Amino acid sequence: MPKIADKYLVVDPWKVVEEGFDPQRSRVSESIFSLGNEYMGVRGYAEEGYSGDTLIGSYFNGLFEESEVGAHYKGIIRSLRFMVNGVDWLYTRITIDDETFDMGTSKFSNFRRELDFKRGVYTRQLIWHLQNGKSVQLFFERLVSMEVSILGCQRLVLKPLNFTGTAQVIMGLDFATIHEDQNTRYWETVKQDRQRGISGMLGQTANTGNRLFSSYRLALPEGAKSTALSEENFIGDEIILKLNKEEETVVDKLVINCADKDREQSDVEVWSKGMKLAKQYAQVDYQTAAEQQEQYWAKVWKHSDIVIEGDPENQQGIRFCIFQLYQTYHGDNPGFNIGAKGLTGEAYRGLAFWDTESYCLPFYIFNNPKAARSLLEFRYKTLPQALERAKELDCAGAFYPIATIDGTESCDLWQHSNLQLHVGTAVAYGIRHYVNITGDRAFLYEKGLEMLIQISRFYATRGQWGQKSGKYGYFGVMGPDEFQLMVNNNCYINLMAKKLFEYTLQTIAEMEQADLAVFAALTDRLGLTMQEQIDWKNKADNMKIPYDDETGIYEEHDGFFDMPHLDIHSIPVTEFPLYSHWSYDRLYRYDMIKQPDVLMFMFLYSGEFSVEAKRANYDYYETRCIHESSLSPSIHSILAAEIGRPAEAYKFFEFATRLDLDNYNRNTREGLHTTSIAAAWMNIVYGFGGMRSDGDKLIFNPTIPERWSQYSFPITYQGTELAVDVNQQRVKISVRSGDPASIHIYGQDYIVGPAGIVLDLKKEG
Amino acid sequence: MPKIADKYLVVDPWKVVEEGFDPQRSRVSESIFSLGNEYMGVRGYAEEGYSGDTLIGSYFNGLFEESEVGAHYKGIIRSLRFMVNGVDWLYTRITIDDETFDMGTSKFSNFRRELDFKRGVYTRQLIWHLQNGKSVQLFFERLVSMEVSILGCQRLVLKPLNFTGTAQVIMGLDFATIHEDQNTRYWETVKQDRQRGISGMLGQTANTGNRLFSSYRLALPEGAKSTALSEENFIGDEIILKLNKEEETVVDKLVINCADKDREQSDVEVWSKGMKLAKQYAQVDYQTAAEQQEQYWAKVWKHSDIVIEGDPENQQGIRFCIFQLYQTYHGDNPGFNIGAKGLTGEAYRGLAFWDTESYCLPFYIFNNPKAARSLLEFRYKTLPQALERAKELDCAGAFYPIATIDGTESCDLWQHSNLQLHVGTAVAYGIRHYVNITGDRAFLYEKGLEMLIQISRFYATRGQWGQKSGKYGYFGVMGPDEFQLMVNNNCYINLMAKKLFEYTLQTIAEMEQADLAVFAALTDRLGLTMQEQIDWKNKADNMKIPYDDETGIYEEHDGFFDMPHLDIHSIPVTEFPLYSHWSYDRLYRYDMIKQPDVLMFMFLYSGEFSVEAKRANYDYYETRCIHESSLSPSIHSILAAEIGRPAEAYKFFEFATRLDLDNYNRNTREGLHTTSIAAAWMNIVYGFGGMRSDGDKLIFNPTIPERWSQYSFPITYQGTELAVDVNQQRVKISVRSGDPASIHIYGQDYIVGPAGIVLDLKKEG
Repeated sequence: MPKIADKYLVVDPWKVVEEGFDPQRSRVSESIFSLGNEYMGVRGYAEEGYSGDTLIGSYFNGLFEESEVGAHYKGIIRSLRFMVNGVDWLYTRITIDDETFDMGTSKFSNFRRELDFKRGVYTRQLIWHLQNGKSVQLFFERLVSMEVSILGCQRLVLKPLNFTGTAQVIMGLDFATIHEDQNTRYWETVKQDRQRGISGMLGQTANTGNRLFSSYRLALPEGAKSTALSEENFIGDEIILKLNKEEETVVDKLVINCADKDREQSDVEVWSKGMKLAKQYAQVDYQTAAEQQEQYWAKVWKHSDIVIEGDPENQQGIRFCIFQLYQTYHGDNPGFNIGAKGLTGEAYRGLAFWDTESYCLPFYIFNNPKAARSLLEFRYKTLPQALERAKELDCAGAFYPIATIDGTESCDLWQHSNLQLHVGTAVAYGIRHYVNITGDRAFLYEKGLEMLIQISRFYATRGQWGQKSGKYGYFGVMGPDEFQLMVNNNCYINLMAKKLFEYTLQTIAEMEQADLAVFAALTDRLGLTMQEQIDWKNKADNMKIPYDDETGIYEEHDGFFDMPHLDIHSIPVTEFPLYSHWSYDRLYRYDMIKQPDVLMFMFLYSGEFSVEAKRANYDYYETRCIHESSLSPSIHSILAAEIGRPAEAYKFFEFATRLDLDNYNRNTREGLHTTSIAAAWMNIVYGFGGMRSDGDKLIFNPTIPERWSQYSFPITYQGTELAVDVNQQRVKISVRSGDPASIHIYGQDYIVGPAGIVLDLKKEG
Repeated sequence: MPKIADKYLVVDPWKVVEEGFDPQRSRVSESIFSLGNEYMGVRGYAEEGYSGDTLIGSYFNGLFEESEVGAHYKGIIRSLRFMVNGVDWLYTRITIDDETFDMGTSKFSNFRRELDFKRGVYTRQLIWHLQNGKSVQLFFERLVSMEVSILGCQRLVLKPLNFTGTAQVIMGLDFATIHEDQNTRYWETVKQDRQRGISGMLGQTANTGNRLFSSYRLALPEGAKSTALSEENFIGDEIILKLNKEEETVVDKLVINCADKDREQSDVEVWSKGMKLAKQYAQVDYQTAAEQQEQYWAKVWKHSDIVIEGDPENQQGIRFCIFQLYQTYHGDNPGFNIGAKGLTGEAYRGLAFWDTESYCLPFYIFNNPKAARSLLEFRYKTLPQALERAKELDCAGAFYPIATIDGTESCDLWQHSNLQLHVGTAVAYGIRHYVNITGDRAFLYEKGLEMLIQISRFYATRGQWGQKSGKYGYFGVMGPDEFQLMVNNNCYINLMAKKLFEYTLQTIAEMEQADLAVFAALTDRLGLTMQEQIDWKNKADNMKIPYDDETGIYEEHDGFFDMPHLDIHSIPVTEFPLYSHWSYDRLYRYDMIKQPDVLMFMFLYSGEFSVEAKRANYDYYETRCIHESSLSPSIHSILAAEIGRPAEAYKFFEFATRLDLDNYNRNTREGLHTTSIAAAWMNIVYGFGGMRSDGDKLIFNPTIPERWSQYSFPITYQGTELAVDVNQQRVKISVRSGDPASIHIYGQDYIVGPAGIVLDLKKEG
């Protein structure tokens, strides 16, 4: 795994700190210092304008534009939807004595910025040395409110160190942002207006008609004078501030942003709704918002913090991951999903992948079940699009998109969007996982089963019977391992489909028992027949699972064992990433894999495979895996811990936890690896904690890395909050709140209560 | 094979005749009535302007434009080159009494048009009934000179039937043509000028700077007055003609077109060269050009005519094929290739495919060896591009493009351009075939071997060793059968590569013996090592050829026998072509094939497979083949004849011979199926004639379709012209000119002289 940390930031348990400004790392820091609240997100760009390398990125969950795709054939998508760059609501310019501050051209010192996990704010301070010898300390703070999703707050503090005078500050809302990936400006202005100290503006995207209402209020110091400014895509204020030597002058800006995708509403309605909300929150001042923010985060940390002792770097890393995960998504707003880069950049176009269910969902299931349910409801809400897409592919049921912002397929590489079938089974697995851990059968019966039936219908029509094998399976597919492009009987896909059919049938039987009337109404509506169920059972029973009896190794797909061998360590480091250095077709003709595929299902259905089987398959596949997906190391870390390879487990663990802080992949500049961040949580809980949640019982087999003295994490299981606390001697699991829980530790059943169970740490022989 | 003839045109042994005008078939007829001389081609559009459905298509071999391709990955092409639509050099407008003639709006009768195979001209006549009651007979004739490639001639005859008066005729050169496929006008005017009765214009393509000089002279009747016209993209004359009742007034226009792709030359040089040629041919009048044309065609028919007695439709069909083949290509101009639609339309973008070597080359080898050599020299000339392309794909040697106009790859579907390897082996096969039949070892040693070595280098670096099989082969490929998109060890590719290596090594050994000094110089220049040769031998010896010992059936690729079965006859006719009606990915997951793949190599290396083996494989694969390529039926026809299925042979034969005349595929409107036209020749010579030319001896096993009384064809073999003449009783093969030839008939060797050999026709038991 040719991935090397780029150590740069200051290590601190509760903050990310950058001391001194490095223009070369400007975009990387912009990503790391991103703020968000799932509704909106904003990169850590310099709001006062920066002539150096910057991406003014301001994103609103689910707000999209679209572009046409030159499709040649049926079933290949014709338009591409992507998250659009929104309003720069932080827009600021600072001028003193005709010199305008710009980190690209101005002289400044004492630069320091912090992302504070406890307060949920991003601060930046520096001393600006003007050409005329004057010096002024600038302090910037911003927050995106977790409590009030539509609220963003900005504070600017000026403190002249050696003079008394005036400053001109411009603050406003700028809709002239460029969507960098498409090199296009998408916003048109619908309306601008000012009412009772609130300046508002309504913008609309050119092709999709998505609308965004944005407004701001200023809280100015006494004696400040402001003048209204207006341009086609901009509304703002010019403020003249009196500055007194060694005194702080504070300007606050409070912004309300309301994103609206509903084309049914008139512009007048959208405007009125926005203005009404702006007025409603007009009483909130910066201080109040900051206090609420800190309270919100206190609750998050109380229920979701992971404590690591003896490893400050990873302590910081895992808190950064949890902080960013909550910022990206916490389930307060319905209808959202998690983009591969969250709300921190344009890469992957703001689209959600199977990562949501496979890598992010577990964090929410065990920390924030409401949010987990809300993620699954995104799939329920977009079921109509999945039904439509299956039809386009000449299949029945629902085919969930490999990449989407609104439920329609938005991956313009046909080989991925048409051949990667594994989102559907990931959704099904997510439903099963969520229901098993939370016990939320209401969701299962109201929405889950309908999805399961429609997904099963897809898998029952997309698959085929092998002519020679007589077995059922999937031909012309790409599994999670994207280095095997178009293969037959991918083991992961086949196994997951088999499990899907079985779980759907089991749920049908269960619901029929539980509530026959509601069940009958559902199956009537869906036209579910007994014949279908027999068909699914037959296909599940006869599913082909490529496997070598002699070695106990699952064959990733038909013919994989004959694929030419490549010693992956013989590839020069300079050739990574291979996507950029190898001819596209060359990637696909070795036994080299990009990310776990067989190992993935051995993790997901852990209980069905022995440690020996995992070890054999790990040894075979890990040596062939180049981890070109940032999601890859974590599954390896978890399995390495299980099969008794603590050093390897730790090596793979480190990568995910500090992937962005140490810019391992050298592409953090494009945005954070949000779904890998979720995997970092899994590394600790499933990896070192040895938790397994795929069976009837919740299992723990804790280990602890050598260099740690202690670690602990909470999880919520069937309404009970458990604390898992491990040191080099013992494991302690106790109930923090809720009923006693039945769990399995080191192969034994226990009923755990508030007093907890303490066991000796089991060490690998 | 759901392909049904659309019988419409008049059957005539030496002409294509259309009586009456059908606007619905306007574009189909435009394609069928195309004229060309390999240098330029022009569709049978109405030169006087037509407001109905028309494609003003005027093409110049190798003249191209290019457009960018949105490529995501390395090795995927970034620009696309395609044949551009050129000047409308036939531009004409006819006005009488303020009414302008237009077949879309005018009243007319007695419409008849002919394409005359003996004269090589296209004529059209009709009577125009003006709104004011006047009637005038219009007669149009055009020819594209086979003798002088740059010369095009046009004649317009007006004969008033019931009045004496005047007509206004505009004639000129129009560079404002639209390239319909790209919906773009590519031509910019560089210069216009008139000198000594010659009006000339130089146009240039916007992106590639290809230039086209075009000029015309008019031959006007006495008393006609002409006025010069000039617009930005047009130069012409307005002619006022005096018309006398029942007398013919003739206007001739003689055009010189010089296409120039050489960017090194200045505009002045290109212009001067064009004008010089225009002046040089200024003496040629229409009558002389028409006489030369007829003489040229007389020679063609003397040496290449196929006579069929008892089947007027196919007699017409095969002559149409030979006529169009010669029009598309006859080797007088170096550096040309054969586009899939010849010079008759924009479909397939004017690009040449492997069809050239696989389907067209045999016709030229046996009818016009100089043209055959010239085709192979196109590949030699474009060797640098093939070397470059191999590098882009991380391979050594030469990788010939799957679709090209100038040697660069121009297929924008990566799955075809990166995975279809079979052009290189087709070129190698073509070299071998050409050399074996003509004995032209000079070509082999001067150019052929260099290509063979570079092609071998590609195949030696693109292939890999199967980890389990221990055999060499090609992974991640698409064979000729494009319904199996990305497979391993395609039997055709592997077998052809094995043969390639063997032939290259054999040629090396032979040339080393024949001319050591020249050989040493060549291998020095190419850096050929003994190690490479050992490597090729090893790979040839260990090539994987998937084959089932029990059934004797070759497996098209690894895993083909397990592909889900589909009864192709169960597909509703309305779902054809499948490319338009099935989801793209669905095409690729059955044991259904698009065109012969295993059967293709059984034909190409016929001598190495027994009739029994062919029968078994034919029975297996033909029942799985939907013939979605127009090239497919012909190979089946040839094999059906060999294995004793005369009815099937005839059914498949008919399709190719009248594919365009009867618009079998309903897409002749886009242009003629030029390479399928070449296959029609193969159907007769290889099919019914039973010729095989892949071994040391030329073999004949003639049969004759039941409904034919007699057929005959000439072929040129090692400098000798042989006539093969078959009727229901006997076979006669004799020498028309040249030395006696050693051939093999019905399993016996014969030396054939002018008197010929007469044998009883062998009938299948």
